[in-house]
Amino acid sequence: MPRKIVIIGANVDAASSARKTDRDAEITLITREDKGAYSRCGLPFVIGGHIPRFEDLIVYPPSYYRMMKLNLKLETEAKKIDVSKRVVEVESKQGTESIEFDSLILATGARPFIPPIKGVDKKGIFTLRTIEDGKSIAKAIETAKSAVVVGAGFIGLETAVGLVERGVKTTVVELLPYIMPTLFDKDMADRAMKMLEDRGLKFIIGKSVDEFLGGERVSSVSVEGEEIPADLVIVATGVRANVELAKEAGIAIGESRGIRVDRRMQTSCEGIYAAGDCAESTCRITGSPIMVHSGTNAARQAKVAGINAAGGYAVMEPALGSAVSKMFDIEVGATGITEYMAKKRGMEVVSATFASKTRAEYYPGAKPIWVKVIVEREMERIVGVQMIGGEEITQRVNAISFGIMKQMTVRDLAKADTCYAPPLNQTWEPMVLAAEMALRKL
Amino acid sequence: MPRKIVIIGANVDAASSARKTDRDAEITLITREDKGAYSRCGLPFVIGGHIPRFEDLIVYPPSYYRMMKLNLKLETEAKKIDVSKRVVEVESKQGTESIEFDSLILATGARPFIPPIKGVDKKGIFTLRTIEDGKSIAKAIETAKSAVVVGAGFIGLETAVGLVERGVKTTVVELLPYIMPTLFDKDMADRAMKMLEDRGLKFIIGKSVDEFLGGERVSSVSVEGEEIPADLVIVATGVRANVELAKEAGIAIGESRGIRVDRRMQTSCEGIYAAGDCAESTCRITGSPIMVHSGTNAARQAKVAGINAAGGYAVMEPALGSAVSKMFDIEVGATGITEYMAKKRGMEVVSATFASKTRAEYYPGAKPIWVKVIVEREMERIVGVQMIGGEEITQRVNAISFGIMKQMTVRDLAKADTCYAPPLNQTWEPMVLAAEMALRKL
Repeated sequence: MPRKIVIIGANVDAASSARKTDRDAEITLITREDKGAYSRCGLPFVIGGHIPRFEDLIVYPPSYYRMMKLNLKLETEAKKIDVSKRVVEVESKQGTESIEFDSLILATGARPFIPPIKGVDKKGIFTLRTIEDGKSIAKAIETAKSAVVVGAGFIGLETAVGLVERGVKTTVVELLPYIMPTLFDKDMADRAMKMLEDRGLKFIIGKSVDEFLGGERVSSVSVEGEEIPADLVIVATGVRANVELAKEAGIAIGESRGIRVDRRMQTSCEGIYAAGDCAESTCRITGSPIMVHSGTNAARQAKVAGINAAGGYAVMEPALGSAVSKMFDIEVGATGITEYMAKKRGMEVVSATFASKTRAEYYPGAKPIWVKVIVEREMERIVGVQMIGGEEITQRVNAISFGIMKQMTVRDLAKADTCYAPPLNQTWEPMVLAAEMALRKL
Repeated sequence: MPRKIVIIGANVDAASSARKTDRDAEITLITREDKGAYSRCGLPFVIGGHIPRFEDLIVYPPSYYRMMKLNLKLETEAKKIDVSKRVVEVESKQGTESIEFDSLILATGARPFIPPIKGVDKKGIFTLRTIEDGKSIAKAIETAKSAVVVGAGFIGLETAVGLVERGVKTTVVELLPYIMPTLFDKDMADRAMKMLEDRGLKFIIGKSVDEFLGGERVSSVSVEGEEIPADLVIVATGVRANVELAKEAGIAIGESRGIRVDRRMQTSCEGIYAAGDCAESTCRITGSPIMVHSGTNAARQAKVAGINAAGGYAVMEPALGSAVSKMFDIEVGATGITEYMAKKRGMEVVSATFASKTRAEYYPGAKPIWVKVIVEREMERIVGVQMIGGEEITQRVNAISFGIMKQMTVRDLAKADTCYAPPLNQTWEPMVLAAEMALRKL
């Protein structure tokens, strides 16, 4: 009898890993949507006009599922998991059905959190999670002159930038005292905000939305009494893990409100795994459970879950939450823990921020770059980094991530063997000089 | 009495570090050239027209030397070091002079190696080491239609690319069987060569130059009997450390033919240090003495030498020889040891090369990238990486360099916490996937 693997969610990473581990397994993916997996991360960039069509985000064509012998059930909703009978009950246009499993992977994802603000049900107010959301927003842009984006995380900012790029006058409203608060400290976030403002984005920071105003359709947003015109509103105030199905089945939910998993991505029920935006991670710095909502972390989890669900063996490493984005020509990236969060957790840290340029002084086209390193005082280990600039932020974040994984100290970083060429960077790498600055504070 | 520090060579990194360590020291720099320090790495990019003027490479204006209270003696040649009397004898237009020192830093650099080929003294044949060399070449380009560059290391290739960019039909001749042989293996080097050929550069590989032909002035180059037209020839067949002065003073020369130094960059004579292209490094992978001819390695050595010469304490970490270059729109970079060199040294290694793109599938503008990782079999540690591609090679090299410094294994790399955004990279980082490929070969 072939092994029966069921995946709730169109998680191709999990399915492909399972297939590579067990060539004979029956692998079934269940999704409520009318299409297979696609890149949600790309949505704001279609809105901004960088990617021609929303359909381009569908990276795996139906032929891929056939080639990998993956049974993809579209427009099908998992209604109940029976843990003892090893069955998922699903509902589709064809009615209800019970699907047996030997292994189950919960890849139920997350949904946008919509704060209970008065008028939030008006037309013209959107979230951005699906291709359908994206298309609705794109349609609204055609006639919109002004927009408000509520929430200054990556999704909110990327979407706001897309709106500005499409000629819509856009204001971002953030309740917390600075933008990108989970990844950046105020000093760095304020620098990024200034750069975004210089490129046409407006901000209202540290204030809350009272009400969405207008008739049937939104026409403005009241922010602590101030009225901001908005033909279009995007609510980007974070996401909540979809854990209801797991909870009802008696599967344990963790303290970070995601599905609790062990290092093999197995839930509290044997043979049932979880991966992606619904599953917890373990923070490499603090050891605590955390929710990391990033595509790469989801993909790493999915690979581990897929291998284990198919009878293989793989473990998930603790997460650093490495993240990067591009907004206009500005790249912003971070990994590890912020100084704010470290202090809140009782860690004694020092930090240093080094400002530099991305190319040799004399080489045209250099862009500014800022690197902030955060160092735990006793062991002198790097626990976090934040970077803003124009070039190669992604791989600088990865470099520090590799370092943190291998317990790099600030002394190591100050002595690192970096490379150099005039068109590509400066002789002294800003990460190295930030480490030197931090060293002097220890 | 203030400490007297003498630096032979206009090494501003050494001088600045010495000054920061000892505010009262008398610091004297001696250089044969008529200007202070400048970026030799930038020379090919002035030739290529990317940097407007050769003078732009002079990063430190005279005011910097004054501000740092550095006594810069131009057009002055050190003729002899008297180790017991602690004196350097120098010669300038003003005659000879003895300069006393408490600490001495040898930053005598290197000079181009010119192979003894018939006709090498003809006009129109240049090396590229100084601003004067660069100006001579720039002048020759004005009338040259064709050029031959002898030697396919970074300097040779960068200069050849510069010539092509200026409209000169250029052929690179390399004696060894592939280009960039100290940093790349044949498989990767051939890929880079193909890309350079596609952009207009010609190559003759694995063949030697018999003779430079022409009258007083070179007009062609004979390569194993084949005659290649050349109004202009650049000889870029490596450099030799300037160690004569040290040798005559009884200072030990190492087996890699550079000045031997300890971890504090001190030579065999107490209080005499060496740094830069004249000084040895220790290879972090093999433990052997090596010559690393890169600006960043020189700068790191100089900083350590400067601090120690001024009575401070600093050690030099073993070197990885991390290097990067940009040729046309292609970035090439490497760190650690090549597969060829590892095997030659009796190391058992496995390698894997992963081909990918620099952005999400659906994001316009992606460029190809190849990542080769080299892994030592017993400890599974990464010992080298080679990369060719269009974007962020520099910081990927740095990332692996950080990893190697901290003894990252191929298993670590396969689990690394990398970041992602559609305009900047793919979900699965090619370094990570190369590690996965290598893992399967262990």
